[in-house]
Amino acid sequence: MNIRTGVEAPYKTYLAEDELPKAWYNIRADMKKKPAPMLNPATLKPVTAEELERVFCRESVRQEFDDTTPQIPIPQPIRDFYRMYRPSPLIRAYFLEKALGTPAKLYYKFEGNNTSGSHKLNSAIAQAYYAKEQGLTDVTTETGAGQWGTALSMASAFFGLKCHVYMVKCSYEQKPFRREVMRTYGADVTPSPSMTTDIGKKINAEHPGTTGSLGCAISEAVERALKLPDARYLLGSVLNQVCLHQSVIGLETEAALKKLGEKPDVIIGCAGGGSNLSGLIAPFMGEKLRGEENYRIIAVEPASCPSFTRGRYAYDFCDTGRVCPLQKMYTLGSSFIPSPSHAGGLRYHGMSAMLSELYDQGLIEARAVEQTSVFEAATTFARTEGTLPAPESAHAIRAAIDEALRCKAENKAETIVFGLTGTGYFDMVAYGRYNDGAMDDFPPSDEALAESFAQLPEVPAAG
Amino acid sequence: MNIRTGVEAPYKTYLAEDELPKAWYNIRADMKKKPAPMLNPATLKPVTAEELERVFCRESVRQEFDDTTPQIPIPQPIRDFYRMYRPSPLIRAYFLEKALGTPAKLYYKFEGNNTSGSHKLNSAIAQAYYAKEQGLTDVTTETGAGQWGTALSMASAFFGLKCHVYMVKCSYEQKPFRREVMRTYGADVTPSPSMTTDIGKKINAEHPGTTGSLGCAISEAVERALKLPDARYLLGSVLNQVCLHQSVIGLETEAALKKLGEKPDVIIGCAGGGSNLSGLIAPFMGEKLRGEENYRIIAVEPASCPSFTRGRYAYDFCDTGRVCPLQKMYTLGSSFIPSPSHAGGLRYHGMSAMLSELYDQGLIEARAVEQTSVFEAATTFARTEGTLPAPESAHAIRAAIDEALRCKAENKAETIVFGLTGTGYFDMVAYGRYNDGAMDDFPPSDEALAESFAQLPEVPAAG
Repeated sequence: MNIRTGVEAPYKTYLAEDELPKAWYNIRADMKKKPAPMLNPATLKPVTAEELERVFCRESVRQEFDDTTPQIPIPQPIRDFYRMYRPSPLIRAYFLEKALGTPAKLYYKFEGNNTSGSHKLNSAIAQAYYAKEQGLTDVTTETGAGQWGTALSMASAFFGLKCHVYMVKCSYEQKPFRREVMRTYGADVTPSPSMTTDIGKKINAEHPGTTGSLGCAISEAVERALKLPDARYLLGSVLNQVCLHQSVIGLETEAALKKLGEKPDVIIGCAGGGSNLSGLIAPFMGEKLRGEENYRIIAVEPASCPSFTRGRYAYDFCDTGRVCPLQKMYTLGSSFIPSPSHAGGLRYHGMSAMLSELYDQGLIEARAVEQTSVFEAATTFARTEGTLPAPESAHAIRAAIDEALRCKAENKAETIVFGLTGTGYFDMVAYGRYNDGAMDDFPPSDEALAESFAQLPEVPAAG
Repeated sequence: MNIRTGVEAPYKTYLAEDELPKAWYNIRADMKKKPAPMLNPATLKPVTAEELERVFCRESVRQEFDDTTPQIPIPQPIRDFYRMYRPSPLIRAYFLEKALGTPAKLYYKFEGNNTSGSHKLNSAIAQAYYAKEQGLTDVTTETGAGQWGTALSMASAFFGLKCHVYMVKCSYEQKPFRREVMRTYGADVTPSPSMTTDIGKKINAEHPGTTGSLGCAISEAVERALKLPDARYLLGSVLNQVCLHQSVIGLETEAALKKLGEKPDVIIGCAGGGSNLSGLIAPFMGEKLRGEENYRIIAVEPASCPSFTRGRYAYDFCDTGRVCPLQKMYTLGSSFIPSPSHAGGLRYHGMSAMLSELYDQGLIEARAVEQTSVFEAATTFARTEGTLPAPESAHAIRAAIDEALRCKAENKAETIVFGLTGTGYFDMVAYGRYNDGAMDDFPPSDEALAESFAQLPEVPAAG
């Protein structure tokens, strides 16, 4: 029974396992103007596959450069692993709709039903598989909030790879349980900046007592990969290949909506580096690019780290140590560090090059939301829909609630789909702060951003 | 594709939402010899419904006494809530089978895909509904590991009831995140023993610095319910009504197995108070009682708290304060306290009266397993099947692996079904101890048990 109307309709829609997508969808293939190429930080020339293959796995690099093939097959071992936790459910938020009194239909795609607690596993297992196929023994990565590190630890355990995780020091200290999950999956976890790399030693010397940043942890993980004999570095967001792997989210969402005879008016995702958003919107953006449909697509970012809404579209460094290629992206500047009081991940200074280009073309809306209102939405969601969301995901919930209330005011029965990327079970320190009424919002000052923008690299127009 | 054989077969079997059971199954209706009646601790006479209704909700008491009705309908609002997280999947543990090299087929019923992290929600929502229907405003309960408290907080939020949780003090201190989840759902959480009740004050005075016990927290929660104007006490295990609600687990398991054309040879569940085990085995035990089938049913308990394997079948107190009725059950004595180094829940001194009677009739096997081997099984499971299990659930995994290895030695392709009651995301302190090689096993000494048995109440044989 439909809880609101009395009509027979499911709360959760699960696709069958044989309906799992057989290929990822590559948005770039349908973009007339492609994302700008990555540049070598030394030469400022487009980076070559050979250069990238020193750092990344061969197949990953191939996918990174491929902006013409729309369908890229998902290898069977990856699909077998996907079947352990996918297809993920598309859920009708009947009880939230009822609590809001909105005529809108709210659907959410829930990616939290796996131990990593988020969608990150979709790309982790793909990248680990390619590392295994290439004959590697070790992989390295960084993690901030810990979801990506957990996902890669799980994927590495599955394929028998040794996983080395550099965890941003403040997270390492504040989230000992995340660390322990990764160790349970056999990973070694090092707080960053550490004394195990040159860049870590340098940063520790220059900034004694620093609690680290994602950009710094990336530099350390890359350095470690370069020094180990059979290792590569894997990254959980921002890159084209990651967006590609995450398209499984959107493909399943579209298939489930079709089964229900639904078409979305608005699609909402939270955006940090952009992996979840690009995955959720993938097939819908494809239709938009091909002129078949015109969905509203909304990226929601934290007011504390507002790359889309207050950033510059420019070439920038991806990491603090400046060892990674330059990307053209919406960025707050690689020296920008969000307020330490900001709890909900999404702390990266830049945004996927592909999403940046789509946003620049006006195909995506963006809005920034403040932390207190995010946790208010999270609590409403938990109490009505049962699931306690990750703070990251709650950014999308905030916007979905706001859109549902707009529909109420305008008396419009729109169909709103949002991404619930994960659960907040390892984020209870932040929830505790909210429960105690002690949560703050610290959007960056214009002065801080100007200082950070001043350090953007100068890149010739041809780049 | 079947990962092992190449044959098309699902990894996860989900029933449709309209296949959710419409009635719970009451094992007691098929028992020729019924569980012994509860006794009033003051009179040692069978307790009456009127007496129990002072503490428990009216409908809960009715269900507690009903040992003749086999099918008890599930009210629609409870089924609506169930649809948010049920039917839960029955999962074929292909990757674990492969790692063990066993010819056995391993299936597990996974109850962890909800924020409470366990099966406890199945009874919490039922009991909260009956409280709401009775016009109550408040409910009280105790929690040890925190799963039940979380489940009842969620259920109370859903029905707008105020939930008061007494949390065993050592858990309250060691698991601040559990506490924060409950607060997020609007519950108030008090460490027990507290100074908010007479019994709490008494225990604090007699045992200064005590870190509490379940039996003591129960006494406090009951006292609080009796003192609030419109409140009742709700309990998450042991009681007949709880076993009844949990039968939804077994009913779904049986329906899913039928779809797959499977019949189990062995059914395995962990056992603390018995709620999960009685739920998982419900329909199978029914067939056994009616002489239709003869499944092996295995209860797995911790060697640190071995009520079945080393307990006495006798009337005993259910709580430290001795305010609750006496139950005839397998018990270690209400004064027994398991080693504080024991991590995995299942710490209650007694066992469901119904399961105790079934065990006494020889219809259930029991085995006790040591903590280190439980965490070893948990880690193997996490690395092969992806999900990081609750330490409680890992007791069942230990036995399932042992049975699968027996099948390998005997070259038998048996079908083994076990209950994976929940996830271990709030148990990472214990995992950390295991990862550090610092986990101990402390089965109670014979002397300790003898001392505890000596305090069992004397009850006339007629009782």
